[in-house]
Amino acid sequence: MSNKLINTSEIGLNVNRRSSCHFRMIVFFLFMMNFINPLGLYAQMVDDSKPASTNVPNAEYPKIDSQSRVTFRFKAPDAQKVQIDLGKKFDMVKKADGFWEVTTEPIVEGFHYYSVIVDGYVAVDPSSQTFYGMSRNASGIEIPEKGVDYYLPKDVPHGQIRRMNYFSNITKTWRVAYVYTPVGYDTKTKEKYPVLYLYHGGGEDETGWPNQGKTDFIMDNLIAEGKAKPMLIVMDKGYATKPGEVTGTGQGRTPSTTLEEVVINELIPMIDSNFRTLSDRKNRAMAGLSMGGGITLRITMNNLDKFAYIGGFSGGSRINAGEEIKTMYKGVMADPKAFNEKVKVLFFSTGSVEGPRVKESSEKFKAAGINNIYYESPGTAHEWLTWRRSLHEFAPLLFK
Amino acid sequence: MSNKLINTSEIGLNVNRRSSCHFRMIVFFLFMMNFINPLGLYAQMVDDSKPASTNVPNAEYPKIDSQSRVTFRFKAPDAQKVQIDLGKKFDMVKKADGFWEVTTEPIVEGFHYYSVIVDGYVAVDPSSQTFYGMSRNASGIEIPEKGVDYYLPKDVPHGQIRRMNYFSNITKTWRVAYVYTPVGYDTKTKEKYPVLYLYHGGGEDETGWPNQGKTDFIMDNLIAEGKAKPMLIVMDKGYATKPGEVTGTGQGRTPSTTLEEVVINELIPMIDSNFRTLSDRKNRAMAGLSMGGGITLRITMNNLDKFAYIGGFSGGSRINAGEEIKTMYKGVMADPKAFNEKVKVLFFSTGSVEGPRVKESSEKFKAAGINNIYYESPGTAHEWLTWRRSLHEFAPLLFK
Repeated sequence: MSNKLINTSEIGLNVNRRSSCHFRMIVFFLFMMNFINPLGLYAQMVDDSKPASTNVPNAEYPKIDSQSRVTFRFKAPDAQKVQIDLGKKFDMVKKADGFWEVTTEPIVEGFHYYSVIVDGYVAVDPSSQTFYGMSRNASGIEIPEKGVDYYLPKDVPHGQIRRMNYFSNITKTWRVAYVYTPVGYDTKTKEKYPVLYLYHGGGEDETGWPNQGKTDFIMDNLIAEGKAKPMLIVMDKGYATKPGEVTGTGQGRTPSTTLEEVVINELIPMIDSNFRTLSDRKNRAMAGLSMGGGITLRITMNNLDKFAYIGGFSGGSRINAGEEIKTMYKGVMADPKAFNEKVKVLFFSTGSVEGPRVKESSEKFKAAGINNIYYESPGTAHEWLTWRRSLHEFAPLLFK
Repeated sequence: MSNKLINTSEIGLNVNRRSSCHFRMIVFFLFMMNFINPLGLYAQMVDDSKPASTNVPNAEYPKIDSQSRVTFRFKAPDAQKVQIDLGKKFDMVKKADGFWEVTTEPIVEGFHYYSVIVDGYVAVDPSSQTFYGMSRNASGIEIPEKGVDYYLPKDVPHGQIRRMNYFSNITKTWRVAYVYTPVGYDTKTKEKYPVLYLYHGGGEDETGWPNQGKTDFIMDNLIAEGKAKPMLIVMDKGYATKPGEVTGTGQGRTPSTTLEEVVINELIPMIDSNFRTLSDRKNRAMAGLSMGGGITLRITMNNLDKFAYIGGFSGGSRINAGEEIKTMYKGVMADPKAFNEKVKVLFFSTGSVEGPRVKESSEKFKAAGINNIYYESPGTAHEWLTWRRSLHEFAPLLFK
């Protein structure tokens, strides 16, 4: 931990410089504290940490200080080695009271999956909410993003997120879809709404956008500000297999996949018959993150009679080596003018830390005459902060 | 494990008794298998276990066989001692491949919380769905209940469960309420619906009834069979504290608690203004399990102008030593005839394994002239199977 210069405002002291004796005593005190710092007393004194918003009720740990350092603490009396895996691993230290503890370095703002590793067992933390990611349940922690509130609950009218069970005859399984309905949906019973189908990434599921993605708060806030049209958002699982099929999302540009069959033949008809939707192509959008971007491009490009808005967040924009844009997806982009008239918005985004690939793809599409919008999330990686921002940028472009 | 006689139909053999030589060889083979049984080969051969329905997608373990035995298996390479805590603890054994494994004795049917204990660390299993219980996140496993399907999804019209965020001015916090809406709610836009407020138990939260409780499937099935009236079910958190208040549910009969204030002054008005409700007392019910039974009795008895149906599942029926029924809850039961006219249903239930206390209370209320219905769930304890059955018995009595 760096031995920083002390900023008095940071530790909550409100110094009136005219009361110079008092001021000098404080300066001397702070000067002395720098020497005892190694004992940890100073750290304790300025500890302004609070339980993470992602904790279960009444759980004190993990807690986060104003510098985004996270302290973990729990009991593991007989363990030999305990680590927190936040992408980077942090060794915990066993205290005299049998509790293990660690305070991390400052953690990047936003949402992170994490694991507790106890003698090699990769565990989920009972003190934290769990999230489905990395193809399993995982703990998650929200590091507050300073000065940013577009995905926080505010004093604005709120929509709902509805859980629906439906049986797929194609996969012979019950599936769960979450549907965001905007404020007013229940009262304006004559009004029909456009629909965005929104897909999670690999190793995640239909709970990703409702939970990690903060879809409801992002949309509630955009709609309250008049920046996005009220719309339905359908969050279904991006996996589907027929009985006996090996799990897979279906790769490649052209083949009809099981998921595409489910979306076109079951999900969309189910949504259109259960909700007051505008069901023409100009009122239907699809977007997805990472693997969900690939799903989106494949399904929309193969079904342009059904979709007019397309979004690939950190995914879906790839042009393979030697591949020509005019022959991709059975040649739907062969006539750029016709394509541009048909597809109202083609949107690609990425986090700036993810590298230049999405930007390069966007430029290649533009060079081939294919209109598209490129958004780069400053300072973020392949993570939910990139995708919350992407939704926040994409939703206002829809159904205008 | 019992050394049972082998039932050929159990192991999938379809024997034609006329091909007698073949048949005798099989009988001899099965006879011999009984001797090698201690080596575990037979157990392996007849292993008919399947991944638990509560597992995350593609997780093979935990898996459950037809005898309700559960096998757990995972990696914990450096651990010294690993146990599964299912109420009773089962020691796991380290295999040569570094995986730990155990097959339990037959586990009681229904839903159970469980923990993985690794060298003293009480962990949540990443392979399983997690549930909020025991005041923390916990793994949960559903042991199939043979011949019972009233809480399973069926080919009937389905309602929805809606997640709503609302700000409480009393607690100064955002709260989440789940609302079950029955099939038809979205289409029969002139129809108004009665409302059941349904509370979880201690250490659980508003996700208990939607997840562990299977509220949606129980109600979908009852409504499809014409056994319950279509109704809204509101599942809110059974805890509420004002800023600075110590966590607590408020005990005792009379004092107005923070939760009661939230329910009466915020939750009910919020539901009545957001949904098409029948908002008179004859169309409002409350029930709860365990601690939620206590909440229910306290809030309804203190507010009989707002509720006409009352349910205490494994809770809420207690009569303290020396307490007189006619003076309980400010004397609302002092005139039994008037009370019986006012309260359409007073329902108490318990699992038969929980002991006679609820039954004794029910009888004391009856002896004091207070009509009530007593339901005893056969063979179940203080657990979700008791409470699913209680809802299944209680809901058909409502709003008739």
